[in-house]
Amino acid sequence: MEKIIQEADVRLPSTFLRISDGSAETPKEQPRDRKAMGFVLVHAGAGYHSESKAKEYKHVCKKACQRAVEKLNAGAPAVEAVTAALVELEDSPFTNAGMGSNLNLSGEIECDASIMDGKSLQYGAVGALSGIKNPVLVASRLLSEALKGKLSAGRVPPCFLVGRGAYHWAVGHGIPPCPSDKMATKFSLSAYKRNRRKIELAEKVESDYVQVKKRRQSSENQENGSGSLDTVGAVVVDQEGNVAAAVSSGGLAMKHPGRVGQAAHYGCGCWAENACNLNPYSTAVSTSGCGEHLIRTMLARECSASVQSEDAHQSLLDTMQNKFISSPFLASEDCVLGGVIVLRCCRCADPPSSPDLRALLVEFLWSHTTESMCVGYMSAQDGKAKTHISRLPPGAVAGQSLAIEGGVCRLGNPMD
Amino acid sequence: MEKIIQEADVRLPSTFLRISDGSAETPKEQPRDRKAMGFVLVHAGAGYHSESKAKEYKHVCKKACQRAVEKLNAGAPAVEAVTAALVELEDSPFTNAGMGSNLNLSGEIECDASIMDGKSLQYGAVGALSGIKNPVLVASRLLSEALKGKLSAGRVPPCFLVGRGAYHWAVGHGIPPCPSDKMATKFSLSAYKRNRRKIELAEKVESDYVQVKKRRQSSENQENGSGSLDTVGAVVVDQEGNVAAAVSSGGLAMKHPGRVGQAAHYGCGCWAENACNLNPYSTAVSTSGCGEHLIRTMLARECSASVQSEDAHQSLLDTMQNKFISSPFLASEDCVLGGVIVLRCCRCADPPSSPDLRALLVEFLWSHTTESMCVGYMSAQDGKAKTHISRLPPGAVAGQSLAIEGGVCRLGNPMD
Repeated sequence: MEKIIQEADVRLPSTFLRISDGSAETPKEQPRDRKAMGFVLVHAGAGYHSESKAKEYKHVCKKACQRAVEKLNAGAPAVEAVTAALVELEDSPFTNAGMGSNLNLSGEIECDASIMDGKSLQYGAVGALSGIKNPVLVASRLLSEALKGKLSAGRVPPCFLVGRGAYHWAVGHGIPPCPSDKMATKFSLSAYKRNRRKIELAEKVESDYVQVKKRRQSSENQENGSGSLDTVGAVVVDQEGNVAAAVSSGGLAMKHPGRVGQAAHYGCGCWAENACNLNPYSTAVSTSGCGEHLIRTMLARECSASVQSEDAHQSLLDTMQNKFISSPFLASEDCVLGGVIVLRCCRCADPPSSPDLRALLVEFLWSHTTESMCVGYMSAQDGKAKTHISRLPPGAVAGQSLAIEGGVCRLGNPMD
Repeated sequence: MEKIIQEADVRLPSTFLRISDGSAETPKEQPRDRKAMGFVLVHAGAGYHSESKAKEYKHVCKKACQRAVEKLNAGAPAVEAVTAALVELEDSPFTNAGMGSNLNLSGEIECDASIMDGKSLQYGAVGALSGIKNPVLVASRLLSEALKGKLSAGRVPPCFLVGRGAYHWAVGHGIPPCPSDKMATKFSLSAYKRNRRKIELAEKVESDYVQVKKRRQSSENQENGSGSLDTVGAVVVDQEGNVAAAVSSGGLAMKHPGRVGQAAHYGCGCWAENACNLNPYSTAVSTSGCGEHLIRTMLARECSASVQSEDAHQSLLDTMQNKFISSPFLASEDCVLGGVIVLRCCRCADPPSSPDLRALLVEFLWSHTTESMCVGYMSAQDGKAKTHISRLPPGAVAGQSLAIEGGVCRLGNPMD
């Protein structure tokens, strides 16, 4: 089947492109001689967002942006701001992360989450974690513990923990446990029962007709298309120009217990890298969608590398087309489902002041092959967040087409 | 501290370089009109291999090569041959994989393993898996199940399972359980007790002096240097020219329960990619060493990409130096520990026969920053495997210097 790229909206109107010009009032938390600076972009998942729930998705994105900006205004680094945004996204019963996560085949909640700090390039991740309300807090704590250096007797601190071990580590580090049944919602439980019946029916029909081979090739009834892919994530740049990215997910509905998706996979769920000798831009990426597709294409890292070239929009478009939809790693898939949010930034060349006093130019983009993707964004200088549900254009086929949108924001010199 | 590259042996003597010229006798398992073809390279870990145990390490490498070649001779694809090699390496009580794996902080065995098929580019992995004698069999089965396509009701099959979920999936797919206490050896149990005492002592000293910060920065008593890094792995090319790679590990001694190392991380533990439009060579890589270092540098995938350039030896040397020892991702580490085995191959341009009848040119390399690395290799046309313990040159500092060695082998036209 031929795959078509359809751009929903290549460039949005200039009013959208320039969301902030640094003229917003100074928040109260800031020292008087230093304005808040920084930017956050969040997503509540690439999947299908019904019109009826659009308001809730936008609301949680807005709140997540506000939490991150509160941290930025208080002078916190990007990695703390991105964690704060994720906690808010996880706490929403509408997203497939933390509270209200998809249930697995055994009716349990097992979450994946990871975080990356662009300054230290450190990384923390948890997989198949049960009994913790905010998996991102465990990932974030793994990262901060790793920054402290070696453990006793020269042992290397872990960057990735899974299952019961991850749970015990979290509780041992002061993160409170949360009974799994408190994390399920009326919605996630009824979806589980519906999916359970669907599988039983599918397997009954298949065994009646002994059409195992046919069943395997069939793409009907894909869970993927049913809105169950709402991994959440965020990318942040702080006033020092440091970037961070994070991602959290309850995983695919009816996944096998112990299955770990892209949200816990290094290079697949999130990526953050400060500018350095080799890279002119600081970049941060968070992904969402079908974990196996995002893992096998290492989409977060690919997108981060791609936007080092001059035209971020074109590079991201090429990457989503050539390294995701048409990736040789997914040659057997006719429906490639995912979405990304991308932030890149650099110091403006003018005025020719000290480099760390120059304004930051932030470009932010999102792209998805799923029906829709809900995003929110806000600069620390803005009074409130903007939210948006991006949708594929009418007639475009999810898994074979893509939408790409974005904007640019100049963050004023913090001493202005 | 200045980091020095020291090449133990840049090019070995030509007798070593050409290990096979296709003149070996045809094995009995082969059809008369078709000679066996294919090549296997295995490792029993990058770490420290004492002279006293050198014989055992070499013996297990030899047996692993033979198992892979038996499969190749029977016409099995690379992915089956690499699995057979890994089972042999896991079954040895001397390696830190499967039987005899390092014990974690709770005295339990939790294994990581993964496998990648260069033809389909499919991948299977297990992490923190207890109670299964051969973790690679589960990874391999995940890969072959994923090749069958979607599950009932359109569910995407998992590529990575961890903990109890992985165990139940394995048993449900006919892989027999093995009580954990049967996987521990006298050696692994006594190492556990010794390490336990070392940690208790280190923590007592630290708490007595309240030198937590100092402790964290100290690199004394590193487990890493004590031979406990013996992840095993193998890379194979079969008679069709398909490549495959696999890796298996018990993980760092005294790791936190639930910790997952590079052996289960996509792009970090192993990589295999057949030649395609973009890549002139088929490549397969397997890594060993300190999991966190190998994860953060994505060493398997980096090495695979690097040997696409003309001079494989020079490219691998540059990658080990610039993207591992001096990687910006490991800037805070003064001791970067790891090793890789790399295989790359292409069809010879002459004679100008049908492409799939042309001889295969196989280049194989190993490189490590650890004290030593034990390898074995064998072509399907050879009567027996060659083994070797590569060591850093005298005076070279582990974690800061590297050794690199390798050879070339021409696999004759299968119809000759």
